[in-house]
Amino acid sequence: MSTSAQIGVTGLAVMGRNLARNFARNGYAVAVHNRTVARTHALVEEFGHEGDFVAAETAKEFVAALERPRRLVVMVKAGEPTDAVIHEFAPLLEPGDMIIDGGNAHFADTRRRERELRERGIHFVGTGISGGEEGALHGPSIMPGGSTESYDSLGPMLERISAKAADGAPCVTHVGPDGAGHFVKMVHNGIEYADMQLIGEAYQLLRDVAGYSPAQIAEVFRTWNTGRLDSYLIEITAEVLSHVDAATGKPFVDVVVDQAEQKGTGRWTVQIALDLGVPVSGIAEAVFARSLSGHAPLRAASRGLAGPTPAALGEAEAAAFADRVEQALYASKIVSYTQGFHEIAAGSEEYGWDIDLGAVSAIWRGGCIIRAAFLDRIRAAYDARRDLPSLLSDETFAAEIAAAQGDWREVLVAATRQGVPTPGFAAALAYYDALRAERLPAALTQGQRDFFGAHTYRRVDREGSFHTLWGGDRSEVGA
Amino acid sequence: MSTSAQIGVTGLAVMGRNLARNFARNGYAVAVHNRTVARTHALVEEFGHEGDFVAAETAKEFVAALERPRRLVVMVKAGEPTDAVIHEFAPLLEPGDMIIDGGNAHFADTRRRERELRERGIHFVGTGISGGEEGALHGPSIMPGGSTESYDSLGPMLERISAKAADGAPCVTHVGPDGAGHFVKMVHNGIEYADMQLIGEAYQLLRDVAGYSPAQIAEVFRTWNTGRLDSYLIEITAEVLSHVDAATGKPFVDVVVDQAEQKGTGRWTVQIALDLGVPVSGIAEAVFARSLSGHAPLRAASRGLAGPTPAALGEAEAAAFADRVEQALYASKIVSYTQGFHEIAAGSEEYGWDIDLGAVSAIWRGGCIIRAAFLDRIRAAYDARRDLPSLLSDETFAAEIAAAQGDWREVLVAATRQGVPTPGFAAALAYYDALRAERLPAALTQGQRDFFGAHTYRRVDREGSFHTLWGGDRSEVGA
Repeated sequence: MSTSAQIGVTGLAVMGRNLARNFARNGYAVAVHNRTVARTHALVEEFGHEGDFVAAETAKEFVAALERPRRLVVMVKAGEPTDAVIHEFAPLLEPGDMIIDGGNAHFADTRRRERELRERGIHFVGTGISGGEEGALHGPSIMPGGSTESYDSLGPMLERISAKAADGAPCVTHVGPDGAGHFVKMVHNGIEYADMQLIGEAYQLLRDVAGYSPAQIAEVFRTWNTGRLDSYLIEITAEVLSHVDAATGKPFVDVVVDQAEQKGTGRWTVQIALDLGVPVSGIAEAVFARSLSGHAPLRAASRGLAGPTPAALGEAEAAAFADRVEQALYASKIVSYTQGFHEIAAGSEEYGWDIDLGAVSAIWRGGCIIRAAFLDRIRAAYDARRDLPSLLSDETFAAEIAAAQGDWREVLVAATRQGVPTPGFAAALAYYDALRAERLPAALTQGQRDFFGAHTYRRVDREGSFHTLWGGDRSEVGA
Repeated sequence: MSTSAQIGVTGLAVMGRNLARNFARNGYAVAVHNRTVARTHALVEEFGHEGDFVAAETAKEFVAALERPRRLVVMVKAGEPTDAVIHEFAPLLEPGDMIIDGGNAHFADTRRRERELRERGIHFVGTGISGGEEGALHGPSIMPGGSTESYDSLGPMLERISAKAADGAPCVTHVGPDGAGHFVKMVHNGIEYADMQLIGEAYQLLRDVAGYSPAQIAEVFRTWNTGRLDSYLIEITAEVLSHVDAATGKPFVDVVVDQAEQKGTGRWTVQIALDLGVPVSGIAEAVFARSLSGHAPLRAASRGLAGPTPAALGEAEAAAFADRVEQALYASKIVSYTQGFHEIAAGSEEYGWDIDLGAVSAIWRGGCIIRAAFLDRIRAAYDARRDLPSLLSDETFAAEIAAAQGDWREVLVAATRQGVPTPGFAAALAYYDALRAERLPAALTQGQRDFFGAHTYRRVDREGSFHTLWGGDRSEVGA
């Protein structure tokens, strides 16, 4: 056993295994380790020809196989398993060594772990990795947090194994200190939820209002994929919709149970946004839509509720409607990203991360699930003005929404009248109209709160807090 | 110092002071205690004539003043102050004694405290108290959790000081074990947020689309308050809207800064619902609407965004529109309560609380902010069928929504076309249409997830989990 490996991966389930192979295929000597030793040997046996692997059977062997400062990638389940692995390895490490957590950890856990390990001189690098199994193997989008010093050491390696955007730029950047990487990965997933929900609504409208078959809708998505919606998710939507179930000859989408599952990151995105006071209504509706779909008994009990049955449009009208849906989808997508980037900006502010939003959008251009041509334009918007109050403040996006909003509204009118649920489109439009509103009913809310709880209010015409003596002569007093 | 007081209150800020007075006015001898002794004496000096107070200067005196088993009400800030007070008093108590936390604690904290104190033989009774200062003094709605044994001792006293519903029933019930009381209080507040948001949207529509003045809208609310919307919040909305600012002569609502504030319970309601997998989109939109309103720089930067400007209707059309808004408000309100009660049912299931939803709606009929004639009908629905899948499954509510839904949709059409933000109305309708949908796009979501992450899917026609080899020949394999 020589101390020659430049990086080590422990936890060799599919993500860890593919990431190890990715490093090896890019010329790095990779130490590999797994709690069940058989899996370690199986990896080397099956993929040993791809590069330079060092199989380690024990934690000590694994650590001994790494050149110093050690770079140790942990690819185990988030939560307790991650703590267990850190607990196992940290005593074997020395100051300057790095533990890279590539799982979907909650950023608050990452902040805690980083703080604890920093006290022992060890760099803890919470790293978001997006792109699933395929991404891990062929090039993911990588979102590392942690210290600048650790990025100086790790960055070049991560750049090598990461996805490359169309312009050749590696899809990795030092997001920011401690939990910044996992935070940004969390919001990435929240945006992914919203993207998928909006696509689902577009599909349902084309199905029920335009009267298209799944195969026809697949064609519509293929066309959209040649325009400004060009993205991985639009592309695979066309693939899924055009797929025919071999067993029944029916469209695949019609034989799948319509109950969507979820892991934790979409939910976290909304929960953290609530803590930060950032409205992410589009992401929330996407998470709720998944949970609603899974409440089978409730849905069964509700199928008889009164409502319209959509009547399909004629051929020419359907085509015009499909064009409008594209406008609604695009406008709603701009709003989703506006909300997601607002959350990142708020997290960055709250935790002092100084995140470069342009750099974040740049590294999402390849490797990850939400990769899209669109992200290049977000990057351009933030590069042009780093302190952009929101994406909607960018002239290009504002102009596109201005052009889209008439159709966006009419699509919602059709959905509302025909009873097709469009929580994502509707939440996006409500957010847009609320942001641009001269006055909001929040003034009434403040009046009510002052009435029942003496919570006070501010006035538009002078400084201070005030309370009206509602139970008395209704005069106003300073508070 | 005699050991004669039947109950003690520590923490004499306005809520604690009024609660102590309420007990005294109902004939109980009340020991009072406060960290700053002056406040204790001030209370006895000012309100001693109202009943039998025992002023205690120290924790020991306070505990010694209470008859056994001791009943000790803690009225301090939620969080660390509550833990500090428990830490101070618990060592002075004996098995069988009760600590009643009347603050707005997070139910998870209440569960922890109850468990810790139970080990020492002390009953910890996390108790939601709604109704603000006035409620605390004249009769709040009270939601105690904790053990049955503690309720046997406390119940009669709480029933005495609580609000009474129109039928004379006291607005208190033993909600369930440990954190059940604080959980239900939390959801109560979430529903309150939703109610206030829906009222705000109705107001904005009457203002912008119907073209009514605040005074005219106050009249509309007064009329509504004589019908099925009869409630405290509708009543005070009319009061706030008819109020004229003395300094400017303008409608009061126009001189208040339109940035709504919030404390924590609305946010918690949504966060916990996300953990429980319960869609509470209406409550979420209400919380988001408040946070959005407070982002002043973002709103300032967004005022120029393109969109329609509402054109007010003629007089006859405006009156018809106002009637439609009542239908939309009522239907959306049914959905809000459906979501809130779903969350309580899910919490009850998760934590084994066995909460009686009919009893919960009954105790909200008086004393609290959301008190309304409506709650009597919810109680009737749950009394008729305790395992009702949701409020929408109740025939009466289903029939009312059936009658309202045409107008509800048209109100949303007007809001959508005219650019008036109605996130609450829209979320409610989307929820309703999703629940009743035969098929949801969740099937497409599952297909996408299987495509990019091999997350598998279920089929409508046979048991099991399946995966399509999307990257291969697209055959299906069991998973």
